[in-house]
Amino acid sequence: MVKDNLIAEFATVMLETGHVLVTAESCTAGGIANWVTDISGSSAFLDRGYVTYSNRAKIDMLDVTAQTLATYGAVSEQTAKEMVQGALKNSQASVAISVTGIAGPTGAVDGKPVGTVCFGIQIQGHEPQITTQHFDGDRRSVREQSIVFALQWIMQSVKK
Amino acid sequence: MVKDNLIAEFATVMLETGHVLVTAESCTAGGIANWVTDISGSSAFLDRGYVTYSNRAKIDMLDVTAQTLATYGAVSEQTAKEMVQGALKNSQASVAISVTGIAGPTGAVDGKPVGTVCFGIQIQGHEPQITTQHFDGDRRSVREQSIVFALQWIMQSVKK
Repeated sequence: MVKDNLIAEFATVMLETGHVLVTAESCTAGGIANWVTDISGSSAFLDRGYVTYSNRAKIDMLDVTAQTLATYGAVSEQTAKEMVQGALKNSQASVAISVTGIAGPTGAVDGKPVGTVCFGIQIQGHEPQITTQHFDGDRRSVREQSIVFALQWIMQSVKK
Repeated sequence: MVKDNLIAEFATVMLETGHVLVTAESCTAGGIANWVTDISGSSAFLDRGYVTYSNRAKIDMLDVTAQTLATYGAVSEQTAKEMVQGALKNSQASVAISVTGIAGPTGAVDGKPVGTVCFGIQIQGHEPQITTQHFDGDRRSVREQSIVFALQWIMQSVKK
């Protein structure tokens, strides 16, 4: 029910603002795109999505640089920034969201515990915004919280 | 539980056969990629995914031709075939799956009722295989049945 309400609200905001979304997802792996298309008529506000699970995919599909991945890691604000910029550039959309995080239970590194998730958002004509969130819970919960955060951040950003 | 068991079985088959997947999803919009990454260690068998919701995305990301879309429609075996071929070519994967269908409640056209879903699969070095399935139920059910069918077809194909 919470999910249904969030998706309905998201659809309303996107239709009212006329924005069209592109997604660039690593740890959520298509979850954002899948959620927002749960509602009929979603083709009006979703153009496409990139599921860049491997580093190679981030480089090929979103023009993330190998140097950024090597220097800062796949889960970093720098990578989230390049992902969102690449997604917006390589699409017909007006707003892009990126997500890269450590859903767990493995994958934690020094300074980046499980539940660390970096997000980027960019509206056409504006600079990208980046944030890092820390979510508690198991793999499924971290991924779901990431989707919910992303949808709320998009709504907040396009309504400005 | 059914979902959890299917995902666990899928992971086992992919790890045992050493295959790596790329997805090309329209009506499921990231659902296949999201499901298979529900399990830790999935980076070993998912390379990337293309969520090609708009026609433009199918052309840009998967090299589907505008002529195919105009002649046969986005939901057609011809489009599913070009989607799966494009996905395999534009990835590092060894097996590709494509899905394009009418999840409903709107979108039905003459000869293609709601629940019509076309799938393509291609294993590197082999010809693509195409099938059309008809699923009953509402939008959410059609999308979920499409994901389940795709995962079962991939397992069957890579085990051969």
